[in-house]
Amino acid sequence: MHRPRRLPLLLILLGLLPAVARALLPPPRFPGPHARPRPRAGARDGVGGGYEFETRYFRQRLDHFSFSGEEEFFQQRYLVGRAGAGGWAGPGGPIFFYCGNEGDIAWFAANSGLVWDAAPRFAALVVFAEHRYYGESMPFGSKDKAYNNSRSMAYLTAEQALADYAVLLTDLKRNLSSESSPVVLFGGSYGGMLAAWMRLKYPHIAVGALASSAPILQFEDIVPDTIFYDLVSNDFKRESLSCFQTIKDSWKELDEQGNGQDGLLKLSKTLHLCQTLNTTGALSDWLNSAYSYLAMVDYPMPSEFLMPLPANPIKEVCRNIDKQPEGSSILERIYAGVNIYYNYTGTVDCFDLDDDPHGMGGWDWQACTEMVMPMSSSEGLSMFPPDEFDYALYADDCVKNFGVRPRPRWISTEFGGHNISSVLEKFGSNIIFFNGLLDPWSGGGVLKNISESVVAIVAPLGAHHIDLRPATKEDPDWLVSLRESELEIISGWLSDHYRARGGAIFQRATNKGSAAS
Amino acid sequence: MHRPRRLPLLLILLGLLPAVARALLPPPRFPGPHARPRPRAGARDGVGGGYEFETRYFRQRLDHFSFSGEEEFFQQRYLVGRAGAGGWAGPGGPIFFYCGNEGDIAWFAANSGLVWDAAPRFAALVVFAEHRYYGESMPFGSKDKAYNNSRSMAYLTAEQALADYAVLLTDLKRNLSSESSPVVLFGGSYGGMLAAWMRLKYPHIAVGALASSAPILQFEDIVPDTIFYDLVSNDFKRESLSCFQTIKDSWKELDEQGNGQDGLLKLSKTLHLCQTLNTTGALSDWLNSAYSYLAMVDYPMPSEFLMPLPANPIKEVCRNIDKQPEGSSILERIYAGVNIYYNYTGTVDCFDLDDDPHGMGGWDWQACTEMVMPMSSSEGLSMFPPDEFDYALYADDCVKNFGVRPRPRWISTEFGGHNISSVLEKFGSNIIFFNGLLDPWSGGGVLKNISESVVAIVAPLGAHHIDLRPATKEDPDWLVSLRESELEIISGWLSDHYRARGGAIFQRATNKGSAAS
Repeated sequence: MHRPRRLPLLLILLGLLPAVARALLPPPRFPGPHARPRPRAGARDGVGGGYEFETRYFRQRLDHFSFSGEEEFFQQRYLVGRAGAGGWAGPGGPIFFYCGNEGDIAWFAANSGLVWDAAPRFAALVVFAEHRYYGESMPFGSKDKAYNNSRSMAYLTAEQALADYAVLLTDLKRNLSSESSPVVLFGGSYGGMLAAWMRLKYPHIAVGALASSAPILQFEDIVPDTIFYDLVSNDFKRESLSCFQTIKDSWKELDEQGNGQDGLLKLSKTLHLCQTLNTTGALSDWLNSAYSYLAMVDYPMPSEFLMPLPANPIKEVCRNIDKQPEGSSILERIYAGVNIYYNYTGTVDCFDLDDDPHGMGGWDWQACTEMVMPMSSSEGLSMFPPDEFDYALYADDCVKNFGVRPRPRWISTEFGGHNISSVLEKFGSNIIFFNGLLDPWSGGGVLKNISESVVAIVAPLGAHHIDLRPATKEDPDWLVSLRESELEIISGWLSDHYRARGGAIFQRATNKGSAAS
Repeated sequence: MHRPRRLPLLLILLGLLPAVARALLPPPRFPGPHARPRPRAGARDGVGGGYEFETRYFRQRLDHFSFSGEEEFFQQRYLVGRAGAGGWAGPGGPIFFYCGNEGDIAWFAANSGLVWDAAPRFAALVVFAEHRYYGESMPFGSKDKAYNNSRSMAYLTAEQALADYAVLLTDLKRNLSSESSPVVLFGGSYGGMLAAWMRLKYPHIAVGALASSAPILQFEDIVPDTIFYDLVSNDFKRESLSCFQTIKDSWKELDEQGNGQDGLLKLSKTLHLCQTLNTTGALSDWLNSAYSYLAMVDYPMPSEFLMPLPANPIKEVCRNIDKQPEGSSILERIYAGVNIYYNYTGTVDCFDLDDDPHGMGGWDWQACTEMVMPMSSSEGLSMFPPDEFDYALYADDCVKNFGVRPRPRWISTEFGGHNISSVLEKFGSNIIFFNGLLDPWSGGGVLKNISESVVAIVAPLGAHHIDLRPATKEDPDWLVSLRESELEIISGWLSDHYRARGGAIFQRATNKGSAAS
C-alpha cells in the first residue's frame, strides 16, 4: 500500500479529537509520531493503494469571498484516476469526486477504496482534491509561510475549501467539454462533512453525496456534548465490563501514583516510556488518544489506517487488559492494553510521548476558528474522568495559541444542523449519511432517514467510515451488502440524471458484486 | 411618502443597467441627479410610506469567510416594524424579512408595501435589513472610508451580504427567544436575487422566499445577452410602432447632427440641456437610461418610485413622440418623449447631464467584481444601436476604474443558474419567482414553474417588482389577485411549518383581501 512521503499531517483526520479535547480532560496532545504509521518506500506519484492516478495542480484563488484587487493564488493538488479497464465514459460521463479533508490527499486516496472500486462500474472519472493548507496545497508557497500566523492562516476554512472544489469542478468539466457530467461527491469524517455541505450548498455542481462518518451535528448543543466519550466507553464496555472498569479506575490510580514519591519515574517505567514524565497530563492524553482512536478504527479486519492493528482491536486490547496475571496492577494492565495500539508489530522498545502539542496544526486552527465541537465526559457512562466543556477556557486557549477567537455558532449558522430533519425533509436531496455505531463520531452523525433521498445508512458493527475503505477478502457480509446499497443509491442518482437528459445511461457494468470484488 | 435624506444611492437599484451597459452602447452614465426623486422633508426615522418602524443597528462582522485575528466589524442598520393593530404573534411567530439591496433600506421599506400590508394577516414581525456598503451600513465608519479603494471595498459581495442576513436573523431570533420562528424572505430586483439565493443557501434559516423580479439568470450565456434591450424595445413597440421606429432612427440622427457644424450646440438646444454637450455619448446614455427605466417602471398606476410618473408611462412617452406636429424633427419628437420621464411635473427648465460617471458607486463595484451581466443590443429587434458585449473591454474598464478584475463565472459557480430547472426540480423548495413581462429584467428571470414549490408567477402586464409595491386604489384586478396568490403560497409555507411542529397556526386573519385593502 502506498503512503505519501510527508507524514506530519497524516493523522489530523483524527486530530478532530485532540483539538476539541483541549478544553476537556487533562490538556490534550496532538497525535505524535508514536501514533503515526511509519513511512514506506513507494511511488510518490502514480500509484496509491494500488490505484493509478495522475497528480495535477490547479491555480486556485485564496479568497473566494472578497475582491481586493491584490488577489493571491495557490497551487491546489488533485489526483485524477488513470483510465483503468474500460476507463471513463468520456464527456458527459460520471465524475466521482472525493472532497479532501485535513491531510495529504494521497493518503485519503489510498484509504478510500470504495471510490476506486466503484468507478469502473459506472465508467466514472475519479478525482481526489486536496484540501487547502494540507498536503502540498499550501498557500504562500510553503507550509512554513502558510502556517506563519493568523493572517496567513485566515483562509483555512470549510467555506473556502468548498468554493475551491466548486471552482475546480466547474473548470475541470469545462476543460473536459463535460459540463453535463453528473458529479458524485465522496468524503469521510471532515471530508464527509464537506461532501454533505457541498451537496447542500452547490446542488448545481453535484448530483449527490456520500457523506461517510460525517459528524455534522457535533456543534453547539445539537447533540449531547458527552456523546463522543460515552460512545468510546461503550465500545470497551461491550467487549468487557472488567476492561471498561479497569480503564475507568486507572485515571485515579495514575494521578495518585504520579503524586507519590518518584511517582512519575515509576509511571514512566510501568508504561515503558522512553523519557521520564514531567506531568501525568501527557500520559493521560496519550492513553485517551489511544482509546479514542481505537474506537474509531475498531474494524472487523486488520487495518493500517492509523497504526498497524489486528481485526477488532478493542477486543484485543481488552483481552490483554483482562488476561494479565492476578495481582497485576491497574497500570500494568493498562500498559498491556495500549501496547496493542501503539506497538502491535512489537518493534517499539519504548514509547516517546514527545511532540509539540502547540504546533500550528491545521486542524487545531480549524477547531479554534469555526470547528468548535464541544465535548464533555459524563460522570456515569464514561470511562474517562468527568469533565465539562468550558468554552471560555477553550476560547482563551485559541487566542493564546493562534491569535484568533473562535466563532462557536458560525458553522450552524452557515450550514444548519438544528432541526436538520425538518429543514431537510423539504429541502435538499441525494445525500447518503453513513455511520458505524462503533465510531464515536457517529454521535454527531445523521442516523435517521430524513427524506426519500436524504438517507441514513447505519452499520451497528461499523467504525469510522468503514464503507469507504478498500474492499478486502475479510470484509464481513454486512459490509459488502452495505456498500452495495450505497452504490445502488448512487446508481439511482446517475440514472435520474441521464433519464432527465434523455441521454444514455453510463452504467457500464451491472455486475452487482463489482464494488466488493 | 417618506424618503430618506441621503439620496445619492437611491437609484443604484437601477444602476444594474448603467453598470452593465458600460461595455455596451456608447459609454454609459450612472443615473444622475436628473433621474432622481427630489428629497422631501419627512421623518428620517419612524415612518416610511406610512409604515411604522424602529431603526436598529447590529454589530456585523466584515468578513464572514476568513479568520485573521484582526477582525473588523461595522454597524448594520435594520428596521423593525412597530407592532401595529394586533402586532407580532410573539415568540415562534412568523418573521417577514426583506433582504436589502443596493440602496438605503428606508427607501426599499417605503416601496415594498406588500411586506407591510401582509404582515398583520400573519401576525408577522417585519424586518428590513440594509445591505452592507449602502445607506448607513458602512464599514470603516463612513462611506468615504468604505469606498476608499479596492481594499476597503473588497467585502462588498453578495455572499457576505447573505451571511450578514443569516447572522443577523440567527441573533435576532435568539434575542427574541424565537428560534423556531418561520422566516419568510422578501426581495425585489437584486434584493430578490438575494432572497432566492438565501433560501437556497440557508434553508435552515428561512422557510421560503418571494423573489420578485430577480434576474438570477442574467449571467454568462444562460439567457441571450440581447434580451434586456429587446424587452425594453418591445415595450415601446407594443405601444406604437411609429414611436419605436422614431427612437430607432434617432441614434443615427443624433450622431449626424452631433458631427455637423455647431451640431452639439444645436443638439443641446433641441433637447433643452442646461449646458452644451461635449460629445453625443452623454446624450445617448441619458436617453438610453430614460427608455430602460421607463420599461422597468411601466406601471399601470401613477408612481414615484424613480421619478414622478403617470400611469402607463411608456404609452404617454409614445403619445408625446407620435403627436408632435407633422414636420417635427426626429429629435424634437425624442425631446417631447423623454420630457415625460425627466420632467413629468413640468418644473424642470433645462436638463443637467452633469454627473460623475466614475463615482465609486456600490453597484458599479459589484458589477465589476461578481455581478457581470453581459448585455448586447441586437440588430433586428432592438430600438437601440446594435452593440455586442465586449468582455475584454468591460474587464479593462473595471481594472481602470476600481483596480479589480471581474470574475464573470463566479456567480453561476457559487449560486448556479445553468440548467436551473433540472437542478432545482429535485432540490430546493418554497421559492416564488415573480416577474412582470414588461420589465426588461424579466428576461433574466425564472418564468416557469420548476417544481411544486419552486414556482413562477408571471404578470404579462407587470413591470419591475410591481407585486411588492404598496397597494393602491388604482391597482388592477390582476395585480390584486396575483398578490393574493403569493400570500396564499406563503400562507401554505407557514401552515406547513406549524403543522410539522404540531403547534398553533399563527395566521391571525383570514380576510382574503387584506393584502390589497
